[in-house]
Amino acid sequence: MIAPIVTVLGAGAMGSALATPLRDAGWEVRLWGTWLDDHLVAACRDGQPHPRTGVPLAAGTELFTAIELPSALDGAELVVLAVASAGAEEVTWRAARHLGTARAVLLTTKGLAPDTEGRVRLLPEAVADAAGERGITLPPVVAVGGPCKANEVAARRPTASVFAAPDAELAAELAKSVATEHYRAEALADRDGVEVCAPMKNVYAIALGIADGLGERGGHPWHDLKAAVFAQAVKELVLLCRSVGGDQATAYGLAGAGDLEVTGLSGRNKIYGARIGRGQSAVAALDAMRVAEQTVEGVPAARLATHLVDQRAPDTWPALPLLRAVTGILDGEADPVTRLTNAVLPST
Amino acid sequence: MIAPIVTVLGAGAMGSALATPLRDAGWEVRLWGTWLDDHLVAACRDGQPHPRTGVPLAAGTELFTAIELPSALDGAELVVLAVASAGAEEVTWRAARHLGTARAVLLTTKGLAPDTEGRVRLLPEAVADAAGERGITLPPVVAVGGPCKANEVAARRPTASVFAAPDAELAAELAKSVATEHYRAEALADRDGVEVCAPMKNVYAIALGIADGLGERGGHPWHDLKAAVFAQAVKELVLLCRSVGGDQATAYGLAGAGDLEVTGLSGRNKIYGARIGRGQSAVAALDAMRVAEQTVEGVPAARLATHLVDQRAPDTWPALPLLRAVTGILDGEADPVTRLTNAVLPST
Repeated sequence: MIAPIVTVLGAGAMGSALATPLRDAGWEVRLWGTWLDDHLVAACRDGQPHPRTGVPLAAGTELFTAIELPSALDGAELVVLAVASAGAEEVTWRAARHLGTARAVLLTTKGLAPDTEGRVRLLPEAVADAAGERGITLPPVVAVGGPCKANEVAARRPTASVFAAPDAELAAELAKSVATEHYRAEALADRDGVEVCAPMKNVYAIALGIADGLGERGGHPWHDLKAAVFAQAVKELVLLCRSVGGDQATAYGLAGAGDLEVTGLSGRNKIYGARIGRGQSAVAALDAMRVAEQTVEGVPAARLATHLVDQRAPDTWPALPLLRAVTGILDGEADPVTRLTNAVLPST
Repeated sequence: MIAPIVTVLGAGAMGSALATPLRDAGWEVRLWGTWLDDHLVAACRDGQPHPRTGVPLAAGTELFTAIELPSALDGAELVVLAVASAGAEEVTWRAARHLGTARAVLLTTKGLAPDTEGRVRLLPEAVADAAGERGITLPPVVAVGGPCKANEVAARRPTASVFAAPDAELAAELAKSVATEHYRAEALADRDGVEVCAPMKNVYAIALGIADGLGERGGHPWHDLKAAVFAQAVKELVLLCRSVGGDQATAYGLAGAGDLEVTGLSGRNKIYGARIGRGQSAVAALDAMRVAEQTVEGVPAARLATHLVDQRAPDTWPALPLLRAVTGILDGEADPVTRLTNAVLPST
């Protein structure tokens, strides 16, 4: 029997990590690096650990460089789009005409994407638009969410992800086709809910980080505050899911509460927040992250989320005090601790 | 104006801690120690930090020893029951005839309580039954839940709690009467949901601790597993809330997800789970906790929860794999890691 072919677009942390379960599940895996990934592809080709995950690429993974896009996609039954969010539309545009054999596009890239008129779209719509510019209709786009750290996926530590598509049967079939002992996906019909939870958890993780930073500064934990932030974040994720027509269970499930939990345990958004909690200004903290070449995805996501709410559910604002507080803190408002506390402690 | 009187029954960590917001909110606070609390009352009387929280008792708090129960309760408008769960029914029975002036009993004690026929009751029902044995009807019982570490409450770090009573207006009025800059309560009508979340979060925190212990043993985090456990725990809390007629929003709010978050950050249930994750057997780990005089509330709660589900919602069992896994692990089943992983990774 010939193994089905999956092409992973993007050789960064998540793209390279997914080669592990995909190979384990019996796929022929082709990993294609973008024009920014040459050094990553080279390291993998040399048998070194992947520079972003610290884990060697799964044995048998075939590597392709940027100019080899057509051959990488030739005959692929499944395509995984795993590039940085800024590149998702361009890579889709370039790949679109080579997707003829693909049954589905798995989208691990996450973000909110404004169109040219400033309307904030969820990413499946944005990549469909990018293909549409070529006159091409994408195969069904399946959102991949949930608490998945790339290095843990690559190293076969247990990971529960979410595959979500309007066609829930397709999502379930694909989830089954990639399932291994260590990596399994829950199939959902609520793609929009998953797509809104993914960028928003980065915003709320900044607030979780602030609570951690307060503890580091004072030498004693602020766990009650962190937990209050967490609960308020889940409540707001529920409302944001509903505002795009999604399901509240997505928000308190793997894609919402689960992904928020993992993002609050580690990661750049939390680290950025911790700097603020330790007393740095939001601007100085962001500069420090930039110097360390650490992108803080929650910062642009907070702005875009503000537009999303303005455009789709402005009535929701009174129930989103934490989103308001985080954007205020990012804008440099004084006394972030009081701002955060007032946002998450119940009003009386 | 004469300050209204609140009597706190139980001079342990939570009882003594609540003196801080209650004093700050303008109450005359009387802290009564049970027959097991003499050393705690003595330490507070000497001006030492409270032995359980490390924080001195709020200035102006009046102390009462076990035999002074009638005078401690004389004229109290509000009573807080904050004893260990094993003592809740007896203290209620003793206090019942002195509660004539009380408008409400705030119940911070948490647990599931079997009656003499083995039927598992929520605690408000159990304490009402205890008063009923005296022929006395308790004033309305208000459940206090949410992510509240006693030492943080005592030290005025921000804390969001939940006050829940069938009479939501009473809950709201009481929440307002104790609100301070640092301590505020959300008022809910869903007392049963709060009462079921509180003991169950201890059960699920054992599972969170196992994921932490695996990380400690292997030297690299198992955050994806911890997050998958977290999301599954919230899903199961939703079902358990519904099984007692409660509201799913309670489960993903402060009393459920919020309290689970704080319990997974620290505390004895998580520490116990971490021992198992590091490779100790469940029995040996519990012995080690006993030697250190650390009660692990999640262990008896897991057994009682099993009975609760059997009695009230046996159809729910297929959707409670994590509760099943934790009870299996506590029963000494081999290979807790595989047991836990299979319970929280989606089935395909």
